[in-house]
Amino acid sequence: MAQKPSIPKGTRDFGPAEMAGRNYIFDTIRSVFKTYGYAPIETPSMENLSTLLGKYGEEGDKLLFRILNSGDAFSRIPYDDYRIEGTEDSYNSKALSLKVCEKGLRYDLTVPFARFVVQHQNEISFPFKRFQIQPVWRADRPQKGRYREFYQCDVDVIGSTSQLNELELVQIVDRVFTLFDVNVCIKINDRKVLTGMAEICGFPEKVVDITVAIDKIDKIGIEAVEAEMAEKGLTPEAIEVIRPILTLSGTTQEKLSVMRGLMSGNSVSGISSETGLKGLDELEELFGFIDSVGIRHDVEIDLSLARGLNYYTGAIFEVKAKDFAIGSICGGGRYDNLTGIFGLPNMSGVGISFGADRIYDVLKGLDKFPSEVTSTTRLLFANMGSDELKYLLPVVRTLREAGVACEIYPEQTKLKKQFDYADKKSIPFLSIVGGDEVERGVINIKNLSSGQQESFSKDDVNGILNFLQ
Amino acid sequence: MAQKPSIPKGTRDFGPAEMAGRNYIFDTIRSVFKTYGYAPIETPSMENLSTLLGKYGEEGDKLLFRILNSGDAFSRIPYDDYRIEGTEDSYNSKALSLKVCEKGLRYDLTVPFARFVVQHQNEISFPFKRFQIQPVWRADRPQKGRYREFYQCDVDVIGSTSQLNELELVQIVDRVFTLFDVNVCIKINDRKVLTGMAEICGFPEKVVDITVAIDKIDKIGIEAVEAEMAEKGLTPEAIEVIRPILTLSGTTQEKLSVMRGLMSGNSVSGISSETGLKGLDELEELFGFIDSVGIRHDVEIDLSLARGLNYYTGAIFEVKAKDFAIGSICGGGRYDNLTGIFGLPNMSGVGISFGADRIYDVLKGLDKFPSEVTSTTRLLFANMGSDELKYLLPVVRTLREAGVACEIYPEQTKLKKQFDYADKKSIPFLSIVGGDEVERGVINIKNLSSGQQESFSKDDVNGILNFLQ
Repeated sequence: MAQKPSIPKGTRDFGPAEMAGRNYIFDTIRSVFKTYGYAPIETPSMENLSTLLGKYGEEGDKLLFRILNSGDAFSRIPYDDYRIEGTEDSYNSKALSLKVCEKGLRYDLTVPFARFVVQHQNEISFPFKRFQIQPVWRADRPQKGRYREFYQCDVDVIGSTSQLNELELVQIVDRVFTLFDVNVCIKINDRKVLTGMAEICGFPEKVVDITVAIDKIDKIGIEAVEAEMAEKGLTPEAIEVIRPILTLSGTTQEKLSVMRGLMSGNSVSGISSETGLKGLDELEELFGFIDSVGIRHDVEIDLSLARGLNYYTGAIFEVKAKDFAIGSICGGGRYDNLTGIFGLPNMSGVGISFGADRIYDVLKGLDKFPSEVTSTTRLLFANMGSDELKYLLPVVRTLREAGVACEIYPEQTKLKKQFDYADKKSIPFLSIVGGDEVERGVINIKNLSSGQQESFSKDDVNGILNFLQ
Repeated sequence: MAQKPSIPKGTRDFGPAEMAGRNYIFDTIRSVFKTYGYAPIETPSMENLSTLLGKYGEEGDKLLFRILNSGDAFSRIPYDDYRIEGTEDSYNSKALSLKVCEKGLRYDLTVPFARFVVQHQNEISFPFKRFQIQPVWRADRPQKGRYREFYQCDVDVIGSTSQLNELELVQIVDRVFTLFDVNVCIKINDRKVLTGMAEICGFPEKVVDITVAIDKIDKIGIEAVEAEMAEKGLTPEAIEVIRPILTLSGTTQEKLSVMRGLMSGNSVSGISSETGLKGLDELEELFGFIDSVGIRHDVEIDLSLARGLNYYTGAIFEVKAKDFAIGSICGGGRYDNLTGIFGLPNMSGVGISFGADRIYDVLKGLDKFPSEVTSTTRLLFANMGSDELKYLLPVVRTLREAGVACEIYPEQTKLKKQFDYADKKSIPFLSIVGGDEVERGVINIKNLSSGQQESFSKDDVNGILNFLQ
């Protein structure tokens, strides 16, 4: 019967120490979301496959975890019809899986959110500000830092086009990383400006090729970016239009001003772009708000930022840690038609997602977890026998009801073993109450790191609480 | 492309109002667990099927949600070998599902906990006190109050046989329902006493039959219970031994004393039971602790309590609400060999599980959710245009950093619409700051339920905070 137990590859157990760090991250983010009036929702882990399929591209469909129908899933299926012609034992797994699986595990929180909004549109008051912190599942090949089950922390508002929403998301990022004491840079772009760039160089249909190339500028340099654009079919004249954008520098106002000139038809092509100008208006309004409210971290326009190009239609956000090398730790943007796929058109939304796993690595790497986070129990009472126990129990109860996490070692055993327990659990205070203390009606408590020891009357709860601070 | 979206049967969406209630329950339970020194863990949603199969009986195996292997799951399978003899299109679904599914969704938190303890035994310091609040999945037929995805809140200690652990669990229940302001009755039994009952009546092998019959006493009465025992093969003499137990009444001490007599050989059979006496010793020690610490709710010995008979080996717990008709809202017990199935024998543990869905129904039914729980945002600032916005933004930021949940309505639109939004979200305070207030440097705030209105200097954060209390 004995088996060596293990867990599926790409999944993880979280013990008390990791949980403490993770909960610190989730609690901090959650508390900030709440002060901005965002309310939590949760959706089921399983969605109908019809809700999920086709929303993440062909590759995404393959990465969905599918759930076998319960009951007699495999009967009444004409397997021979699914055999791939000319083979003996190759079958069409894609088609067969649709026959035996109707449900899948959610792949992200965005599609379930869109489904939720459409399904509950009559109960929701718009603009609807929601956050959602739940795991998602992807059948990706597991590798360092990439898991098959991981949490997403999404915050979105839907039903409002105001740039105030974009501002609030920037403020939320600013506040969260201020609380984490991590230096970040918040990069902002606008999809409409990217569209405008493609328009003024005369290749509106090549917006993806152009931005994918520009996105690599930090890695490969300007010349290589220009070469890639030429390879994708851009003429030398078109590349000349884009060149000033590649070398754009200066303050936000200076960047916006140069871009406004180009989008107004002042580039060598002479083409102007309404859409590009609208994107610049949005950025200008957003940065106006940012200036008036004050943001602690760096916020900059980054015209090479091109994430989520397939669905974002306005602002695009990305956050990077400045003192720790890891990819983006937070990102998002505005999407004008998120719920259209479920039959509710013209709902504009904007949101960001915090990458909890990467933030965990950053806080750990920079040693930024507060020390209280790592210890769970504050005070251990040694177990000296049943008389002492009966003396202690009401005191311990009072301390617990005052919010102090404390334990009585459950077994009456060697003190060495009890000390070891305190040590392994990083419990900072220890109390040994024996017959003498019981007789005198006192409680001795020792601070295990400073060595300081004090004695309190067993009714002096405030004195004990102060000592445990 | 438009589809009418829905979710799989037996699953639920939770909107902001339900989430607020649910989080209140989870946060309360979690905070109590922590004061008792229990630390959180989380395990993956998916376990290997080899971990889960055979742990919940044959019925349980059928209720596991299985996850299709990713990739080409259906090729290289000789389907003809799985056809049920004599049929054309009936296949052995059980065997086929094992070929194409290696993983399943967890069915409870106990088996994953046992697997966790064995897998991480070298990192854990015992006694190991853990709690775990995560969803579980069961392919049960959905019905009122029974879902295919629901949360369990388990708290267990493993690696200690002390009755102090049982006491702590009783205290945790006592504290949680005191905080919820719900009257409960905590019923306690001991599996060893049930074993003893079967032994002293001369039918040790019929312990399950006997306790299943006794369990029905409230519903069907003494005579029917005796008839059922006779039907199961108990002799009239055996039933005579059990009769005094069926009519047992009085204080805990009186009950224990009668039982001690019976277990010592003073019944009509003259048979004594070591195991039964050991169970009584445990109960006596536990109730001794309970007396010395003081429990606010009713705690009673209930010898007809027989839940989880297949795995509990010591204490058995059940909690019922006294003022609301619903089944057990909390239950658990001690199991002496939980981790044996995974190769780690002789680990005794005791734990309880809180039924979050039922507790939600009780709190809702008794109207016990605190009023703060239902509102998320405290203060709404009306949107009167961009000049007012720039004036407000720094004030709003300060309030949020002081922990006040506030919102600015994102669009500059009719005030009626903005008021409706506050109303629908049950926001209790409203501020309308127009050009006049900007000029005077003040913030007006109105308490929407009392009608009281006050004006504050925009820098008077403490004044505003006090008013919002």
